[in-house]
Amino acid sequence: MGATKDCISLLTDYGLEDGFVAACHGVAARIAPAVRVIDVTHLVPAGDVRRGGAVLAQTVPYLPDGVHVAVVDPGVGTSRRAIAIAAGDRVFVGPDNGVLWWAVTAVGGADRAFELTNEDLWLHPVSSTFHGRDIFVPVAAHVAAGAPLESVGEEVPIDRLVRLPAPSNRVVDGRIDAEVVSVDRFGNVQLSARETDLSQVGARVGGTLVVEAGRRQFAVPLRDTFGSVPPGELVAYTDSAGQLAVAVNSGDAAERLRLPPGAHVRLTPAT
Amino acid sequence: MGATKDCISLLTDYGLEDGFVAACHGVAARIAPAVRVIDVTHLVPAGDVRRGGAVLAQTVPYLPDGVHVAVVDPGVGTSRRAIAIAAGDRVFVGPDNGVLWWAVTAVGGADRAFELTNEDLWLHPVSSTFHGRDIFVPVAAHVAAGAPLESVGEEVPIDRLVRLPAPSNRVVDGRIDAEVVSVDRFGNVQLSARETDLSQVGARVGGTLVVEAGRRQFAVPLRDTFGSVPPGELVAYTDSAGQLAVAVNSGDAAERLRLPPGAHVRLTPAT
Amino acid sequence: MGATKDCISLLTDYGLEDGFVAACHGVAARIAPAVRVIDVTHLVPAGDVRRGGAVLAQTVPYLPDGVHVAVVDPGVGTSRRAIAIAAGDRVFVGPDNGVLWWAVTAVGGADRAFELTNEDLWLHPVSSTFHGRDIFVPVAAHVAAGAPLESVGEEVPIDRLVRLPAPSNRVVDGRIDAEVVSVDRFGNVQLSARETDLSQVGARVGGTLVVEAGRRQFAVPLRDTFGSVPPGELVAYTDSAGQLAVAVNSGDAAERLRLPPGAHVRLTPAT
Repeated sequence: MGATKDCISLLTDYGLEDGFVAACHGVAARIAPAVRVIDVTHLVPAGDVRRGGAVLAQTVPYLPDGVHVAVVDPGVGTSRRAIAIAAGDRVFVGPDNGVLWWAVTAVGGADRAFELTNEDLWLHPVSSTFHGRDIFVPVAAHVAAGAPLESVGEEVPIDRLVRLPAPSNRVVDGRIDAEVVSVDRFGNVQLSARETDLSQVGARVGGTLVVEAGRRQFAVPLRDTFGSVPPGELVAYTDSAGQLAVAVNSGDAAERLRLPPGAHVRLTPAT
Repeated sequence: MGATKDCISLLTDYGLEDGFVAACHGVAARIAPAVRVIDVTHLVPAGDVRRGGAVLAQTVPYLPDGVHVAVVDPGVGTSRRAIAIAAGDRVFVGPDNGVLWWAVTAVGGADRAFELTNEDLWLHPVSSTFHGRDIFVPVAAHVAAGAPLESVGEEVPIDRLVRLPAPSNRVVDGRIDAEVVSVDRFGNVQLSARETDLSQVGARVGGTLVVEAGRRQFAVPLRDTFGSVPPGELVAYTDSAGQLAVAVNSGDAAERLRLPPGAHVRLTPAT
Repeated sequence: MGATKDCISLLTDYGLEDGFVAACHGVAARIAPAVRVIDVTHLVPAGDVRRGGAVLAQTVPYLPDGVHVAVVDPGVGTSRRAIAIAAGDRVFVGPDNGVLWWAVTAVGGADRAFELTNEDLWLHPVSSTFHGRDIFVPVAAHVAAGAPLESVGEEVPIDRLVRLPAPSNRVVDGRIDAEVVSVDRFGNVQLSARETDLSQVGARVGGTLVVEAGRRQFAVPLRDTFGSVPPGELVAYTDSAGQLAVAVNSGDAAERLRLPPGAHVRLTPAT
């Protein structure tokens, strides 16, 4: 037996209107009744591997050590691999399409990886379209209940895993070229830049940041939090994941600035 | 005492914006603190008994044995009966409007049924509009905690229960006349036809299915999974509930084909 | 050590698309692994303190005694206080902006209050924008796990707490001047008036209520429940929180009557 885990976390794009998430909870409860299941989110836009990967990476450090399942899987039923990755005291389970990669990196990187080939741990009959219920969650539950990671299937060299390219972010000529990583419920625009990038270009809290997106340009005060500016005004700040973000206090910055995930911006301190 | 159950599942049309679901969880936790509560979904369209019944029936086989509560109840506060149905090791609790029926059938059919008339098991004062909180969940929690099913009220003959007519589905003259049962978050269109119907009309995986809806007609490849066709293309497959479904790979088939739940289609193998 | 609590409840405006709620669950599970977490709702409209306060107040009486966290916090990161309020066997934790006030009142009023100043109970580094994860939930989890309430920080006189003005409601000249408190998922319009107000103006179940909103006027049957009138018709009734409400049976009254939260109405019995 391996070490048991107290917690399974679950991130999917299954939505909440159907019974898909409940079926996963049910399967986990039948295999590992003592294990707590924490839902990360099930509202990843359908098939959006990068969004799923970003949410998982920013959430996992706050979850108990456990087995973290992510199923954003447009290739379900095709030849894409199903994998389990050991990273420190955590295990990540999902399709080998990169959705796990940023989270694995966020907790220190992969130690070992296995392809899910041991069908004894699966739920039969296995459907072609719902591997969350039939493969990923059953395997995760067996591992949480103490099955050794080696039992899930054949080991795969870590350098053979599919990686998700990191959002582009670089400092050149005194400016930051960054990318929108994520937009949250409030319309706050999270960028790939971090605090260290700001100091490299000489931007500091209390000053103003010029944000260019294509031909559009915005002067944005750099502050501690959105509450530091009056309602309705733009503000840049370091967000709760340690990333630079742009918000409108009590408003929707993504809508105001028309900056969806993947959009590119240039950042310079105002002179 | 009856046998205790480890799990209560909860399906409603209460939505997630209000505190209705939490009140149900709270009431269950106060009566049966050791019992796990699994949410099936709370996003059944308001009053849509057929949708609620379909989601429950397709999810329950994957849940632990337990007490399954379903509250899609447009008749709350009127003379419709409140019932508990024993089916194998499971108990179903809800209004007697058919919402439980397909799930009861899916796990082998009703053994006994009881009308909820024992007000000692209810939460008082009982409101006129929130029987989930005041009647169904308290009764379910008492049963999960070990109250014998006979204690919930008077036995009702099974043949007096309200049944939900099954979605229409028949094979005639080499074609399948089927109905849209459900549309999931991805826009996948689940039909009432099953794999056995396909073989009866001579359709097989690898071939093409002609789907007629009114005057419109679509040629749809019959494959294992949506990933078997290029993104944006139609595909028919057996879904995770064992039903024939039509999808657009990485797209929304219900929107493309304009096929809402209840729509009728004719299916024939392409010659 | 204080008394341990079995339950933490969580109400926020974080939404369900991101990992914010899961991070709170994770932090709670790491500090107080034996404590159950019940989600009240996370779909409070962003920054809507009154809506959050109303949902909490109407739900808390049905939750087990425990620690109740509410984070609707447009002032996060500014000088607004973070507080814990003891009320009977319950503890409420959140920003001191009034969001807790109606719930505290609903369970009998505040006994003592404390400002959250003991940083030893926080999660470090503390972000400027996510005090749910970094301050409120960690403090709540420590209290649930048995930390004495006195340990969270300095006591604050109860009369110094920010209070949320109650929705306006008064009986004058034989009419009720009331306010829309809340609109639920079904479009049911909950008013600030209660059953006792109805009897004061001589309205009774079985009769008709005239509802005036600005220049518009509606005659609404006063009944026990929405199912007492045919589908599509207006009905007034006492709802599950004991408030007067106006619904359309199987329809959306808020939309039909154009009555959003905060709207004022006059109610008189039809003569």
